Amino acid sequence: MSDEVTGRTAGPRRRGGRGSGTVRAALSTTQYRSLKHRFPPSPVVSEDELESIHNASLTVLEEMGIDFMHEGARAILKKAGADVKDGVERVRFDRNMIMETIKTCPSEFTLHARNPERNIRIGGKNLAFAQVASPPNCSDMQGGRRAGNQQDFRNLVKLAQRYDIISCTGGYPVEPVDLHASIRHLDCLSDIAKLTDKPFHAYSLGKERNRDGMEIARIARGISHEQFEAEPSLFTIINSNSPRRLDTPMLQGIMEMSSRNQIVMLTPFTLAGAMAPVTIAGALVQQNAEALAGIAFTQLVRPGAPVVYGGFTSNVDMKTGAPAFGTPEYMKAVLAGGQLCRKYGVPYRTSNVNAANTVDAQAAYESVFSLWALTQGGGNFIMHSAGWLEGGLTASFEKFVLDCDLLQMVAEFLTPLDTSPAALGLDAIRDVEPGGHYFGTAHTLERFETAFYSPIISDWRNFETWSEGGSPTAYQKANAVWQKELAAYERPAMDPAIEEELDAFVARRKAEGGAPTDF
Amino acid sequence: MSDEVTGRTAGPRRRGGRGSGTVRAALSTTQYRSLKHRFPPSPVVSEDELESIHNASLTVLEEMGIDFMHEGARAILKKAGADVKDGVERVRFDRNMIMETIKTCPSEFTLHARNPERNIRIGGKNLAFAQVASPPNCSDMQGGRRAGNQQDFRNLVKLAQRYDIISCTGGYPVEPVDLHASIRHLDCLSDIAKLTDKPFHAYSLGKERNRDGMEIARIARGISHEQFEAEPSLFTIINSNSPRRLDTPMLQGIMEMSSRNQIVMLTPFTLAGAMAPVTIAGALVQQNAEALAGIAFTQLVRPGAPVVYGGFTSNVDMKTGAPAFGTPEYMKAVLAGGQLCRKYGVPYRTSNVNAANTVDAQAAYESVFSLWALTQGGGNFIMHSAGWLEGGLTASFEKFVLDCDLLQMVAEFLTPLDTSPAALGLDAIRDVEPGGHYFGTAHTLERFETAFYSPIISDWRNFETWSEGGSPTAYQKANAVWQKELAAYERPAMDPAIEEELDAFVARRKAEGGAPTDF
Repeated sequence: MSDEVTGRTAGPRRRGGRGSGTVRAALSTTQYRSLKHRFPPSPVVSEDELESIHNASLTVLEEMGIDFMHEGARAILKKAGADVKDGVERVRFDRNMIMETIKTCPSEFTLHARNPERNIRIGGKNLAFAQVASPPNCSDMQGGRRAGNQQDFRNLVKLAQRYDIISCTGGYPVEPVDLHASIRHLDCLSDIAKLTDKPFHAYSLGKERNRDGMEIARIARGISHEQFEAEPSLFTIINSNSPRRLDTPMLQGIMEMSSRNQIVMLTPFTLAGAMAPVTIAGALVQQNAEALAGIAFTQLVRPGAPVVYGGFTSNVDMKTGAPAFGTPEYMKAVLAGGQLCRKYGVPYRTSNVNAANTVDAQAAYESVFSLWALTQGGGNFIMHSAGWLEGGLTASFEKFVLDCDLLQMVAEFLTPLDTSPAALGLDAIRDVEPGGHYFGTAHTLERFETAFYSPIISDWRNFETWSEGGSPTAYQKANAVWQKELAAYERPAMDPAIEEELDAFVARRKAEGGAPTDF
Repeated sequence: MSDEVTGRTAGPRRRGGRGSGTVRAALSTTQYRSLKHRFPPSPVVSEDELESIHNASLTVLEEMGIDFMHEGARAILKKAGADVKDGVERVRFDRNMIMETIKTCPSEFTLHARNPERNIRIGGKNLAFAQVASPPNCSDMQGGRRAGNQQDFRNLVKLAQRYDIISCTGGYPVEPVDLHASIRHLDCLSDIAKLTDKPFHAYSLGKERNRDGMEIARIARGISHEQFEAEPSLFTIINSNSPRRLDTPMLQGIMEMSSRNQIVMLTPFTLAGAMAPVTIAGALVQQNAEALAGIAFTQLVRPGAPVVYGGFTSNVDMKTGAPAFGTPEYMKAVLAGGQLCRKYGVPYRTSNVNAANTVDAQAAYESVFSLWALTQGGGNFIMHSAGWLEGGLTASFEKFVLDCDLLQMVAEFLTPLDTSPAALGLDAIRDVEPGGHYFGTAHTLERFETAFYSPIISDWRNFETWSEGGSPTAYQKANAVWQKELAAYERPAMDPAIEEELDAFVARRKAEGGAPTDF
């Protein structure tokens, strides 16, 4: 319970202070970097029950198998001893082979940023928050809901840079469909590399995109190919095609990224009742089988390559088939996923999710239930931490700001409770007679400005004052905040030579036609 | 992790089922009785740090003391060896005396209802939810915010009866200021005794009200004075006048209730920065000193009398002095309070709180942060579980329904994850080829109706359907639900002889003038 394990940046404790050793002076939120878990994870199943899930998933791998839709991948698997038949996509795995293969997974590693102060530790007790990724739509209170586009994309990326609690972008915060698919990754990734100084993600949609993403990350850091390969600087999410399928772009993504020691996050999309059994335990069995197969594959490509176990199991509304998020079932799946990851010694990726259509009470409670589960479940790398709405179909500017507030509250919850003699306050208690108050005591005056978390959104005015102020909802307050933060955005410094190299690379790759769109 | 410790009523597992042995048939939510904690509590301080808080609070009691504003109470304390000086309200306690005295506190006991199926176990792993209590105002979407009155009081009491997740009322869900203070307790408590079959609370506002409350509880149960004294059937909240003061009505309340073996919940109102030190640790020291003094007093009145340790420490907004709730600081205080209660072996009362002025995202996230803390903190008896708004100044009909949904989600989260072979679903996984789906499998068809929690409020329709449906927010949905539930209310059966006795008692006490109003 010492300061050492909490990871709040040293230096002045609160907003308004300046983090020690940070490159951006006067940024108000530098204490929200390098967060660490403080509470022992909550187990949702017993050790025996965990073994049952684990063993059932190994039975899936051994008896039913996974389709690997790439011949080169199957050749790697065959060479390693998996049960591969010529011309057949289905691959089966001896249970011992799986367990032996994943032994080389590192339990903790660093995702490097072009600003070393923004490096992210992944695994162990570390907790990092990535922005919402991949919605086809975005929305804000004035503009309404609209298809993703480059301007909104850039604005959301800028907002990701504004908050230190956001460790990095998690992909494209909205899909800019006004950019042609062949060159979208070039524009988007070079934008992210310039507009933020944080690490980023490349989609696995054909090997060219992985390669371009790695080159952009390398150039942005101004490092050699050798250093890039020694220091993971890019990550990719691989969502297996549940049930039990890894397609060509996914396998290419793993081969490209793992072979160069970059980070793969293997996340089966196992919605109980749709792409997975209707029971949470059954969905977990399938999630685990798919995750283990993909994780093992990364280690066959390159033993020791950094890999993350992704849990995304939730349930569907059985009346409509619509996905549900932030439910009690989701919470249990998150806790169980954490238990599996700790068993395997692999970092754990999970998400801050909800299925609300607007920034109302539902959006908030489903999100906080998600945050509860991922905090108590020991999640290490949290996708969709800020901005996700409608089960991921929309990136909301207001929800982004609201989520940053929620994440900061989680970070504050994870700071230690100061029980030093001065904090115990016996002198203060002695100073105040029964029936008195503490507003004017020396103990209070010394601390009142920094004593408590000062929220972004929460409105604590009394009803009368709040009514006179126009009765703003949290949604309306968040609307004002994101506009102010966007207006205050400043581009982080970049060496002009690096920027020139980056632009030249993008121009060349565009001239070459970008990447194929027939993946 | 067996069913045994989860407390969901046996019988059909889900909504639509009928709880076994329950008196009201076809009530859809009977599985939400007798909830139990499942997760090990999360410690926010180390054992050493807990000792520091504990020791500092004993120093407060030993060196600074607590004002006991009742001569008879001081006589009891003096006889027991406390440091009491004639004519002086300040009482100091030897630290060993406090620890010896609280040894007789029972760690677990039953609060009896007139319907034995509604008895509440308090302490140990038990978790019970009481409705919002004591706001001066109430509000709903159509009627707006208004002063409390008898009609709204009755409607909120009826709603408390509608949901099984609500273990009992927690006081008056809104203060009916249209009833004269001298007879308000008679009307309100006889209303609650008739309109619900759940246990209830009497305010400690002069000894006559405690006595009337106990008599109403006894008559409603149709039991003798002896049985009443053997079976705790009423509870009272004692909020010490922080800092360090227990006034006359509070001490009378303890003496009346504890001497007859009824339940006292001793809850200091320690807002850090206002009535307690600005540090959370300091506020906890003061909370603990006040709680221990009051709890010790209950045991001097009657060793073994049922008593609950109440934690209510939160922070204020230091810019305005307004109380804040559901904050990170509140969460830590809730966890630390749980650690203290487990140390002393005394049941723990805490609350579901927020400071929002409307049923928006803030109301939801502050509430779920509270629920997170009280679940991970091992709270046993939760006040203000449903309906609280504006830091307790308003009882909201919509928030009541929304909170019932949140509480039910917590209850579902506390059910075990079924890992039986059928739930692991290997046969289902075998049935579905890669690329397929589970919608039509036998495994799904057998379970889909009851597989997942079906929420009261959450709207999982896609954006288009939701928009066509008028884009309802959670607030609007809750508005429709409470009206429907109120319309569906049915009064629980009561023996006519008991009702007659109850009415006669109330009539007689009214004729006698009720209770003094100069407390």
